[in-house]
Amino acid sequence: MPSAVRHKPTVMSLAEDLAAGRTTSRELIERALAQIADPAGEGARTFTKVYGDAARAAADAQDRLRAAGYVVSPLAGVPVSVKDLFDVAGERTLAGSKALDDAPAAQRDAPIVARLRAAGAVLIGRTNMTEFAFSGVGINPHYGTPGNPRDRLCIPGGSSSGAAVSVADGAAIVAIGTDTGGSVRIPAAFCGIVGFKPTQRRISRSGATPLSTTLDSIGPLANSVACCAIADAVMAGEEPVVPPAIAVGRLTLAVPQSLVLDDLAPEVATAFQNACSRLSGTGARVVDLPLTELGEYRTLNPRGGFAPIEAFAWHRPLLARRGNDYDPRVRSRIERGGGMTAVEYIELCAARADLIARVGAHTTDFDALLMPTVAITAPPIAAFARDEDYFRLNALILRNTSVINFLDRCAVTVPIHQPGTMPVGLMVVGEHNCDRHLFGVARGIEGAIATQ
Amino acid sequence: MPSAVRHKPTVMSLAEDLAAGRTTSRELIERALAQIADPAGEGARTFTKVYGDAARAAADAQDRLRAAGYVVSPLAGVPVSVKDLFDVAGERTLAGSKALDDAPAAQRDAPIVARLRAAGAVLIGRTNMTEFAFSGVGINPHYGTPGNPRDRLCIPGGSSSGAAVSVADGAAIVAIGTDTGGSVRIPAAFCGIVGFKPTQRRISRSGATPLSTTLDSIGPLANSVACCAIADAVMAGEEPVVPPAIAVGRLTLAVPQSLVLDDLAPEVATAFQNACSRLSGTGARVVDLPLTELGEYRTLNPRGGFAPIEAFAWHRPLLARRGNDYDPRVRSRIERGGGMTAVEYIELCAARADLIARVGAHTTDFDALLMPTVAITAPPIAAFARDEDYFRLNALILRNTSVINFLDRCAVTVPIHQPGTMPVGLMVVGEHNCDRHLFGVARGIEGAIATQ
Repeated sequence: MPSAVRHKPTVMSLAEDLAAGRTTSRELIERALAQIADPAGEGARTFTKVYGDAARAAADAQDRLRAAGYVVSPLAGVPVSVKDLFDVAGERTLAGSKALDDAPAAQRDAPIVARLRAAGAVLIGRTNMTEFAFSGVGINPHYGTPGNPRDRLCIPGGSSSGAAVSVADGAAIVAIGTDTGGSVRIPAAFCGIVGFKPTQRRISRSGATPLSTTLDSIGPLANSVACCAIADAVMAGEEPVVPPAIAVGRLTLAVPQSLVLDDLAPEVATAFQNACSRLSGTGARVVDLPLTELGEYRTLNPRGGFAPIEAFAWHRPLLARRGNDYDPRVRSRIERGGGMTAVEYIELCAARADLIARVGAHTTDFDALLMPTVAITAPPIAAFARDEDYFRLNALILRNTSVINFLDRCAVTVPIHQPGTMPVGLMVVGEHNCDRHLFGVARGIEGAIATQ
Repeated sequence: MPSAVRHKPTVMSLAEDLAAGRTTSRELIERALAQIADPAGEGARTFTKVYGDAARAAADAQDRLRAAGYVVSPLAGVPVSVKDLFDVAGERTLAGSKALDDAPAAQRDAPIVARLRAAGAVLIGRTNMTEFAFSGVGINPHYGTPGNPRDRLCIPGGSSSGAAVSVADGAAIVAIGTDTGGSVRIPAAFCGIVGFKPTQRRISRSGATPLSTTLDSIGPLANSVACCAIADAVMAGEEPVVPPAIAVGRLTLAVPQSLVLDDLAPEVATAFQNACSRLSGTGARVVDLPLTELGEYRTLNPRGGFAPIEAFAWHRPLLARRGNDYDPRVRSRIERGGGMTAVEYIELCAARADLIARVGAHTTDFDALLMPTVAITAPPIAAFARDEDYFRLNALILRNTSVINFLDRCAVTVPIHQPGTMPVGLMVVGEHNCDRHLFGVARGIEGAIATQ
């Protein structure tokens, strides 16, 4: 991992510091709140709500619990941010929009929020996002666009834009996002951190504003794969342990040659090639795999696939009532789904199952697939001024990640760029439902790349 | 159970006879084949194909295996029929239609067929059905309509018409059917036998011609609940054991007051009331439950629900090529699905999940729900001559069973009529995924009713 990232705090490093008495949860929270409040920083655009006194009180309580011998998980006392689309009891869930500002307050926490609280996490705030999570760019005309931590004039990526910036800027140790077509992995890659998308069914989507009921997946962003493994286990209701790293010399990894290597920016191609070489040099078997089936993905999605139609079904009454309050670029993409017939939808479901089976027949021999998380690095915000550029760049940004949602795989992005350059992510893709194995694979890869 | 049914053969009684040397598998098969071949019987309309020599050879092999000490399951050596829509390696799967007579032969057995063979079952034949399983009546203009065993001028019920008649007439000990809106339970109730519909996902639908991918469930018909429990366990890949009967005095049972008691024929109302009284008299708590939510089922399905649209998606190319070979009453019901939009379909999925949750909140305190399986007894075949009578009666016949498919529950129908009268079924409905518990409940109920 580049040196700029190497020394950033992780769940495990903080757990050790807290256990050794080198810091307190209250200190971690005060530091995070100061970071958010800094007028020179991005806090105002990264968070839609900050839990100041409630976070301080929870941190003090966690410090007392620790003193009494109660440490319920490695997340105990650690600042965690949640995307603006999760229900938190007593608050309106706005999902980055103005159109829900008259909605009733949530009656209870989303299950993943409740599990994070039970694991001792301290909620630091709700993070900004693309309105209704419907774009990979991260620009929000209502609440502002948090600047990319490497270059504030560039986009952070989305839709979990504030989530990625909250971690990269040190305002949270773990951020919880959602990923329907790449909305965790894209901002993680653009901001130089780690992001994880689980196999969809593993984590309850209850209490999260839906984009696509078929594809929505809930995952963490953080500074290491191990951080993501802990947060994922907590949200899945599993033991909060980190799978051990698998030695790179024991890994067989495949690089698909279709679709995902097209139109790469030169700096992405170089970073990806260097990462693959590094893995080969450390003893991994890295093989090219034609996987021409991936090329079918474009033609299977002539109307944009599941997200526009499933979003349209959910948004139709809200569009009728508050459509003028939507970001027009989000609204137009949702309305695109309206013309689909039920036969087309059912055929899309069947085509998906068929593609999953055929791709799976080729990939079962490998520990993981490798590909660039995004084909380009984060472009300047100014590059999205014209609608046609917005839609073209958005499609390119989403391409590699969204095919993985369509295949219902699990995937981690880990940073592979050189310090001082715009971040690039390596996407490590596991088999359906093999999420815990993927963490072991990704930890091995992360370790091999960090030593370069 | 009425005395007419009480002494009919069951899997367990035959397993004992085979173990004691009182009969052989070959003898069972010869008796079944003779029954099918009897020109005075319904064999020609009950089966679309009979496995004569192959069944004899398999029976002889099972007798030799038994002599050598190999009895792999209680189904070993027992004649079992399968509905015409299951793939059997080397045969065309016609699904009761003429329109598939140029289809390629199946390359392999459906998984449930393979599991039945592995459990030692002897396939006696493929059973007739409503074309493409799309009606609860059981009339088939292509292959004839097997007459109801109580009155051959009446319908057998469908779509698994031949399945029910094969058991009632003694040509099979267990019949395997499919149930999308009642297609196992309706013919079982009309023919005076037991039929079971599992929670949908428990049994693989692979290798079965689909009607509705959302609702299709695969279940057995037989002379006892225990027979169904054995066949179900074999098809699910579980241990082939029978859950013990739960004492009726320990059961709390609910009778929903909405929808399912409307428009009952007097003989059905009387038989149902007698059965409930018998259960109360034997010590069960039988309580009325408003469950007004069931009334919403009609309005949720303005276009016929999942079956027409999901069938249309599958049949569209076949209709274009061979539509004139379809039963016009089946064709018109399939084509009804064509106009549905994707939004309507997605809203139907969401409404279903919502109804399941709300009904489940009311039923969790009960061991089972009780209701008449069908609101009427089997009408004369002649009553279906006019299309409007066909569609009206079909809707009434399907009503109680199809709401259970929509709720994705498991359910058993057990006979409750008096000997010598047209059969009536009592539907015992379990919670989602609690299929094995339901077998214990239904065995208790079956035993209590049999002693009346």
